[in-house]
Amino acid sequence: MAIILTFLGKGGTGRTTVAIAAAKRLASEGKRVLLAGQDTSPAFGLLLGASVGPDPQEIAANLKAVQLETAVLLERSWEQLKKLEAQYVRTPFFKEVYGQELGVLPGMDEALALNAIREYDASGEYDAIVYDGSSDRATLRMLGMPEILTWYWRRFRGVFSGSELGKALSPFVQPVTSAVFNVGWTTEEIGGQPARDANDLLERGQAAVADPNRVLAYLVTSAEESAIASSRYLWGSAQTVGLTVGGVILNRSSSVAALGDRFDPLTVTPFPTRQGNDWEPLIDALPNFAQGSRAPRPVEIDVASGQVRLFLPSFDKKQVKLTQYGPEVTIEAGDQRRNVFLPPQLKGKPVKGAKFQNGYLIVSF
Amino acid sequence: MAIILTFLGKGGTGRTTVAIAAAKRLASEGKRVLLAGQDTSPAFGLLLGASVGPDPQEIAANLKAVQLETAVLLERSWEQLKKLEAQYVRTPFFKEVYGQELGVLPGMDEALALNAIREYDASGEYDAIVYDGSSDRATLRMLGMPEILTWYWRRFRGVFSGSELGKALSPFVQPVTSAVFNVGWTTEEIGGQPARDANDLLERGQAAVADPNRVLAYLVTSAEESAIASSRYLWGSAQTVGLTVGGVILNRSSSVAALGDRFDPLTVTPFPTRQGNDWEPLIDALPNFAQGSRAPRPVEIDVASGQVRLFLPSFDKKQVKLTQYGPEVTIEAGDQRRNVFLPPQLKGKPVKGAKFQNGYLIVSF
Repeated sequence: MAIILTFLGKGGTGRTTVAIAAAKRLASEGKRVLLAGQDTSPAFGLLLGASVGPDPQEIAANLKAVQLETAVLLERSWEQLKKLEAQYVRTPFFKEVYGQELGVLPGMDEALALNAIREYDASGEYDAIVYDGSSDRATLRMLGMPEILTWYWRRFRGVFSGSELGKALSPFVQPVTSAVFNVGWTTEEIGGQPARDANDLLERGQAAVADPNRVLAYLVTSAEESAIASSRYLWGSAQTVGLTVGGVILNRSSSVAALGDRFDPLTVTPFPTRQGNDWEPLIDALPNFAQGSRAPRPVEIDVASGQVRLFLPSFDKKQVKLTQYGPEVTIEAGDQRRNVFLPPQLKGKPVKGAKFQNGYLIVSF
Repeated sequence: MAIILTFLGKGGTGRTTVAIAAAKRLASEGKRVLLAGQDTSPAFGLLLGASVGPDPQEIAANLKAVQLETAVLLERSWEQLKKLEAQYVRTPFFKEVYGQELGVLPGMDEALALNAIREYDASGEYDAIVYDGSSDRATLRMLGMPEILTWYWRRFRGVFSGSELGKALSPFVQPVTSAVFNVGWTTEEIGGQPARDANDLLERGQAAVADPNRVLAYLVTSAEESAIASSRYLWGSAQTVGLTVGGVILNRSSSVAALGDRFDPLTVTPFPTRQGNDWEPLIDALPNFAQGSRAPRPVEIDVASGQVRLFLPSFDKKQVKLTQYGPEVTIEAGDQRRNVFLPPQLKGKPVKGAKFQNGYLIVSF
């Protein structure tokens, strides 16, 4: 299992430079590192000083780099899907369509990148994977995906099987699935084994994102006001996704004081401007990533006191929406929405109150 | 109908600043302008010098601004979907799920933003919509969506109805759809009216993106090598999406000569560094957007000579893949893939040859 490290910050703050320095640093510590970039333009290779392609290539001792090309990943995933189809479906029809024809739709970048990272992680070939996303929004959506997909599956499955629609369809489920699949399924177990496998995968992904020893983000900012505002917003948004932010890297400035207490309680690390191809001062300036996992966690559940504490720094009460329409408590902030899965002791209980305190939204049941 | 204008360029080159200046410029010419930003962080409002929210607000004469918040758009679209469900489905079940619970999955940002822009355009309230995306990749995926979705629908529908699977399922289609929907459909017309409506919408979207008098992009770059490389890559990638690039804006530099002939035949316009809140020099420096539509179009089809000319500047032969696996010719470049829909005279004919000439890939049938 590798630690997956990523960097969030406004465009132009030097996110990719920091990611490259971090990969070099971890490799110099003897870790086997994969630097995975989502930018498929030549800019990534120019900055890295090496040519990169859709398969990991060694660019230095312990350090490999890969450019995650969605068109390539889509083609490979399509082949896997066809194999799965051949296994379960009596008369496969996806086989008529070639991976080389498939256009890239929105969302595929994130889904396929996440899957690629999962596979690199599972390969056991890396101790650390440094992911350089194409935008903060896309990175957060990507990391939020396992949890949100699990929720959609759980919620819609429940609604469907209890609904009139589910009942109206249920006489057809067995004959349809046995006509199509090698096995016959009932409404209760639509999808059967493949669905269970997919769900396991999502739950493992969800657990990884929630564990700062597995997935950890750092903020990158310059001393400019709009970059600081962006980073603070990303800090809060990351919590809504369930992602721990380990610290702040202040690029092109040594005046940590300029940030004041705006990122408390995180540690702010000054990072020098890059001078040509001399990466040493940058590598030396980086914080110790192993300490990042000490930062506040997004959610703390205290069953005894009937409290859920959500770390939501940078937002005020007006910017956070808390609702309890469905069976779970939903929290909305930073254009992210999350359903907090409650332990059995709190589940189904109505929310008694909510208050903001020291950057935490404390919800009482 | 509004002209939709967007800007592509590496993070930090000042894309948002240029977009704001462009919106101000068009408003000063008497056009009714909507500036739509995908960035939901406070940075957008800070740069704009106005507070912006999820509904258009007037920030100056003729100028409104809106922040496209996906969580809000998702809630609204969910209500529309429920109405559609109530209209067609006998026993609606989506009504059990609340829009406020729904998490945001990858791809929803682009799909919902495109839909929002379509609605603002259709409202007739605007002469120009300036779209400031959260990343170039996301903007290109968004604008490529109508064409690619149409392709998926056409291709999979054809494969499905001709397949063993389609035949195995066809006895169930009528009883299942009549149990679920208010109308009974056969395999040939799965989805019926709503599917036809959706397809019309996609085809109109596709036509708009292909028309530089409706949708037009400009590149934004600084004089830095990695920014230039990025912009050139985006220039080529935009063509693969079917989007015309009208010109180049060189930010924070007046030395147009530094770019050499790397963007020929586009016009390069120097753009000054922003000084505080004085937008006038920026507004004055912008090119005349009405002339952007004279730039090379992504595809030219010449039936008489049996040629398809694809404008693919910035790529060389090695970076472009041309395949003819399926019923159409597929072109892949810049991590985008496009199926070129051929006129009846060329359709089904094998590709005889392909060559690169003056930035064009010329395919002969």
